[in-house]
Amino acid sequence: MERYQVILAYDGTHFAGSQRQVPKRRTVQGELEKALKRIGWSGTSVLMAGRTDTGVHASGQVAAFDLEWRHSPDDLCNALNANLPPDMAVSAVDVAPSDFHPRFDAASRRYRYRLFCQPRRDPLRERYAWRVWPAPDGETLQSLARLFIGRHDFAAFGSPPRKEGSAVRTVMQAGWQPHDDEWSFDVQADAFLYHMVRRLVYVQVAAAQGNLSAETVARALAGQAQIPAELAPARGLTLVQVTYPQNLVKS
Amino acid sequence: MERYQVILAYDGTHFAGSQRQVPKRRTVQGELEKALKRIGWSGTSVLMAGRTDTGVHASGQVAAFDLEWRHSPDDLCNALNANLPPDMAVSAVDVAPSDFHPRFDAASRRYRYRLFCQPRRDPLRERYAWRVWPAPDGETLQSLARLFIGRHDFAAFGSPPRKEGSAVRTVMQAGWQPHDDEWSFDVQADAFLYHMVRRLVYVQVAAAQGNLSAETVARALAGQAQIPAELAPARGLTLVQVTYPQNLVKS
Repeated sequence: MERYQVILAYDGTHFAGSQRQVPKRRTVQGELEKALKRIGWSGTSVLMAGRTDTGVHASGQVAAFDLEWRHSPDDLCNALNANLPPDMAVSAVDVAPSDFHPRFDAASRRYRYRLFCQPRRDPLRERYAWRVWPAPDGETLQSLARLFIGRHDFAAFGSPPRKEGSAVRTVMQAGWQPHDDEWSFDVQADAFLYHMVRRLVYVQVAAAQGNLSAETVARALAGQAQIPAELAPARGLTLVQVTYPQNLVKS
Repeated sequence: MERYQVILAYDGTHFAGSQRQVPKRRTVQGELEKALKRIGWSGTSVLMAGRTDTGVHASGQVAAFDLEWRHSPDDLCNALNANLPPDMAVSAVDVAPSDFHPRFDAASRRYRYRLFCQPRRDPLRERYAWRVWPAPDGETLQSLARLFIGRHDFAAFGSPPRKEGSAVRTVMQAGWQPHDDEWSFDVQADAFLYHMVRRLVYVQVAAAQGNLSAETVARALAGQAQIPAELAPARGLTLVQVTYPQNLVKS
């Protein structure tokens, strides 16, 4: 019996989030467990690194499980992919330490949010991006992203997993990259609050469209102002990477 | 009553092609006609520039219809988008000459085929691209694409719309663009045979993977050899543009 770490990619459109919850709702965890059972796994629950909401995508979600497997990790990867549905795949498999936990051991998570600026719908992009119009001001986006970098109490931007839990998080990286009529927001933090990335994106876009002042955003971050609780749509968001201390496992 | 030209984009995944045929099958033409009826159109059939197969996408399909409309073309565009399903949208509307026909008047069509080279499935890309492995040789792709440029009898690569019709077509442009682990094939011709782009792509990839000789491809183009009739999957293909003589309408 070994503990395996797998990197998962999925199109979140038809998943009710990553975590198995209510029976009968299709989740990433549930589909992974079904695929594992087909190749002989007898466990009850896999471990997942991050919780993604309904409709959120991933290219670098991490899961772990214990399995008796007589072939190589590469063979395990192929066997899982043959048993997973088309909107979900494993991109890498590694043997992990026997006490490895993808969530508790994670050093950071990185998300990307993609949006495009057009006055009209674009059916070839809207599955993976948020259409925004009028186009947000690029300098405002960049200067707001810089505000978030560092250790802050993000209580105005999301809820901690446990009620009364701390909302202090450390953002290591936050910035916007332009590409034609698109912007992508890359943000890396030790951990995120519930809905935090989608709220950060919504607030930055609102400010960069002139609907909210940058000063209000700064004051909200200092705990001195309220900001709208609206969210950027799930479909623009992708969990890109979960990193671990180097001595633990590859990320 | 005016004739309008509209540029259509659609995600072809859930369409049984572009042309209305058997009732009850969902087509691009059928959905456009439904949306038009909701805004007062009383015609029986819209005109379409190109026929796209089941699963093929478009960013630049062209359609035309006659409509009594008292507002601006821009308002018509918005009204159509409000009535079209999410996987289909109009990106532009213009008034056209009253005898404009999007298919017979077209000067050329441009398609793009997108593929990516990975040993494992990627659920975030496979809706719009073909996964190919082993990676095809780039120089072989480029030199084969150059072969197709010019006026040739493409009988080995597709069927003409009418049986016994000519298979001679003029390819104005054909080439591959690399981007990270992706390749996109851009091809423009006066017109295409049925399945022609997907067969050209399949044959080039087979040759660039070493499964078919470049010489056989050249001989097939000269009518001196047979090549496999297999097709690259529809999901990688997008109809990008239909062009018209400048005096006629904008393209």
